[in-house]
Amino acid sequence: MPPKPYAIIAGVGAGTGAAVAKRFAKAYSVVLLSRSTDSFSALEKEINDSGGDAVGIATDVVDENGVANALKIVDERFGRDAICTAAIFNAAGKLAVKPFLELTTDAFLAPLDVNVKGGFHFSQAILPRLLRTAESSKTTTYPPTLIFTGATASLKASANFSSFAVSKFATRALVQSLAREFGPKGVHVSHAIIDGIIDTPATKDYMKDAGPDAKIDPETIAETYWYLHTQPKSGFTHELEIRPSSERW
Amino acid sequence: MPPKPYAIIAGVGAGTGAAVAKRFAKAYSVVLLSRSTDSFSALEKEINDSGGDAVGIATDVVDENGVANALKIVDERFGRDAICTAAIFNAAGKLAVKPFLELTTDAFLAPLDVNVKGGFHFSQAILPRLLRTAESSKTTTYPPTLIFTGATASLKASANFSSFAVSKFATRALVQSLAREFGPKGVHVSHAIIDGIIDTPATKDYMKDAGPDAKIDPETIAETYWYLHTQPKSGFTHELEIRPSSERW
Amino acid sequence: MPPKPYAIIAGVGAGTGAAVAKRFAKAYSVVLLSRSTDSFSALEKEINDSGGDAVGIATDVVDENGVANALKIVDERFGRDAICTAAIFNAAGKLAVKPFLELTTDAFLAPLDVNVKGGFHFSQAILPRLLRTAESSKTTTYPPTLIFTGATASLKASANFSSFAVSKFATRALVQSLAREFGPKGVHVSHAIIDGIIDTPATKDYMKDAGPDAKIDPETIAETYWYLHTQPKSGFTHELEIRPSSERW
Amino acid sequence: MPPKPYAIIAGVGAGTGAAVAKRFAKAYSVVLLSRSTDSFSALEKEINDSGGDAVGIATDVVDENGVANALKIVDERFGRDAICTAAIFNAAGKLAVKPFLELTTDAFLAPLDVNVKGGFHFSQAILPRLLRTAESSKTTTYPPTLIFTGATASLKASANFSSFAVSKFATRALVQSLAREFGPKGVHVSHAIIDGIIDTPATKDYMKDAGPDAKIDPETIAETYWYLHTQPKSGFTHELEIRPSSERW
Repeated sequence: MPPKPYAIIAGVGAGTGAAVAKRFAKAYSVVLLSRSTDSFSALEKEINDSGGDAVGIATDVVDENGVANALKIVDERFGRDAICTAAIFNAAGKLAVKPFLELTTDAFLAPLDVNVKGGFHFSQAILPRLLRTAESSKTTTYPPTLIFTGATASLKASANFSSFAVSKFATRALVQSLAREFGPKGVHVSHAIIDGIIDTPATKDYMKDAGPDAKIDPETIAETYWYLHTQPKSGFTHELEIRPSSERW
Repeated sequence: MPPKPYAIIAGVGAGTGAAVAKRFAKAYSVVLLSRSTDSFSALEKEINDSGGDAVGIATDVVDENGVANALKIVDERFGRDAICTAAIFNAAGKLAVKPFLELTTDAFLAPLDVNVKGGFHFSQAILPRLLRTAESSKTTTYPPTLIFTGATASLKASANFSSFAVSKFATRALVQSLAREFGPKGVHVSHAIIDGIIDTPATKDYMKDAGPDAKIDPETIAETYWYLHTQPKSGFTHELEIRPSSERW
Repeated sequence: MPPKPYAIIAGVGAGTGAAVAKRFAKAYSVVLLSRSTDSFSALEKEINDSGGDAVGIATDVVDENGVANALKIVDERFGRDAICTAAIFNAAGKLAVKPFLELTTDAFLAPLDVNVKGGFHFSQAILPRLLRTAESSKTTTYPPTLIFTGATASLKASANFSSFAVSKFATRALVQSLAREFGPKGVHVSHAIIDGIIDTPATKDYMKDAGPDAKIDPETIAETYWYLHTQPKSGFTHELEIRPSSERW
Repeated sequence: MPPKPYAIIAGVGAGTGAAVAKRFAKAYSVVLLSRSTDSFSALEKEINDSGGDAVGIATDVVDENGVANALKIVDERFGRDAICTAAIFNAAGKLAVKPFLELTTDAFLAPLDVNVKGGFHFSQAILPRLLRTAESSKTTTYPPTLIFTGATASLKASANFSSFAVSKFATRALVQSLAREFGPKGVHVSHAIIDGIIDTPATKDYMKDAGPDAKIDPETIAETYWYLHTQPKSGFTHELEIRPSSERW
């Protein structure tokens, strides 16, 4: 029996990354990348305990060779013939929301480093595998897929959000260019703009009085990513946004 | 047993409308609106013959009372307590692609009439029903949904496409305003931009040498609309685009 | 001596239209179109009294032959050889800002009628003249120019603004398509998005405590239109927005 | 007599930067920043020989202290009381247009470094001076202005243009956030999207058969920037695009 195809998720802390990993683990082996083992060890155990197949690898996507090294471990684990069927880039840097003249250079550049340099390394390491899947005679059920997580700041740069918006506009450009280059080669590259507060442990005190559905359930994001993955080549969505029904936008 | 909820589709000629109707007929009764009985009679029979429940009603959406009159027939057929769970506006006027100075007033305004006046009448007739569903204690599986079909020309007005683009930009405004007004009331209003040639009998000679997946399969559109319909209130997509993987955009 | 070139302004009530007319009257004869003579008679006198050359013509741009008939009067007045050098469409319909389900069909369609049907008739009547100017051996100082007035609602359709936004999105499509068709023929077609409250008699009670520069001075708009008109063929601006420095956007 | 106000231009090689410098030198002293003295020495001489007042300072905007050090020289030259009235960021990194998988990390990041890190340092150094001008009782004729040069790739990320588009989307975010933060404080922050080939020595062989006006004259860009600078606080343009009349877009 050939090995299960695998999906690889970069940025798997509580919230979106974990929910996406669990969703894709219903169908595939999943590779969990995060800088620190703490971010994925409980998730890895949860997936494996419930019949899935997860492997967490501590990886700094900003590091030139970080993702490439992680993929060596993937190959050892799943074998060189294993099929890479989906990759999700959900990593995020430390957010600094403050007046522009109060930003240090490091604080300003931090999200850009993770999103763009990290996104670049991740894409360069993973796209050759997705291309191989697209060209392979071993067909997968769905076209190989590369999804990036966007945000409100992917489209609008508000006052005091220069650092974050710079990183998210830049990511959007990267994803859009990749979609135009790799779509005709059979790889579905997609950008999901999460326009609202995601309901995670870190945001549990936000919008407490705003009623249910004021925040975005990470499982809703995960279902959206899964849906994008299932789209056939005759109709790829490159960009969509998700927001709570109660959001004023 | 309560009656099945119903979905109503305006514009059900060959192609998108028919595919959407068949997809929603797997779960709901479906109401098929089209100006001419010829457009829906075969489809109505096909759905009913395969175990679904379809009713076609000849309706001109541009007519002030057209949709309202059709809804009276719906009520007679399904009963006043039947739940309206989804509405899709897919009607289209006659397209005139030509140099601006060669357009007659009637040709220029024709798509606007169907898309905007028709879309207005359809939305005014159907939104009170969708609101009732949203507020009802009888829960439906998914939030009530109103979807409009957009096009490449919803975002870009090319030379010689003034008439069509005017109608599609205008429709996009209508849908966006409705989404902002009715989303917080629990109705999911969504705009799907179909960016490419749809594979229908009318386009069978287009792009013949461009390989498979050069045109958009109507079933792909139908699955997309169904997916939009299934989104929960914690994550509505207002706008997405679909295009063939091979499309240069 | 050849006749002065003329500019024609549709929609010359107090505010933008009047300011634009006075600005263009410094260089050209100006034709003032408005449905009612009351809207332009004082302005016409003011321009003529101060050494300019203005002619007001009561015209309903929504009427199929309204603009064409006005142009006959223009030809009688200035002669058939007079050069049309600029045209500004600034007409606006009655604005209905209200919940969607409270809109009558007439109220919903009124702005669309003026902006789109009116903009269509105006463009069809005036573009042959602007083309003639572009092709003429009698050079004018600046390329012939057609400018439309846009609004915040040209880009964003807010809740309760469906009627207005539909008309402004549609207008934007018309202008964009015309720019792509007529730019290569030497006619500069431009769309100015006025993103804020214009300081007119009708808005004198708005934002009274917001300090100076909270509203847009109509003369600022007029200078912007004049600047657009002066752009050479090596660098046309198709779209720009103007907003008060204090505006939160 | 108080010293003339000064404008500072970063990126003054042949083309846009030089034309902008000459335009602003008609009214102000101008500071010319470029990495290499070769880029500005002839321009500096030309401006000074024709009655203007230019000072070139070899500066690497990517260097943390580069712009700050240049401003010390400016203060020595013009005095600490001299008024900074305009700043233009026109620097550009080395462009790599190639398939994504052929890009080295350094080639991918080079434009981002100049545009975003450079734009960050430039803005942090210059905005306190522009704010001081805005607040000063010594009024200048026009509001202090910060302009960034954008490109087609500011809005569209084409295949093979990932590196450039990432840098230009990111810059657009920076400029948009600054406009929202500093506009209400009286500083006009603006983004000019140059959508076409600029007519410079480096592009003299491009589009040779496309007729006059197929490329953008740098003087047209310079006039546009000057116009943006002259806008009053009651009507700031944040973003506009310029393209040749013959451009297909």
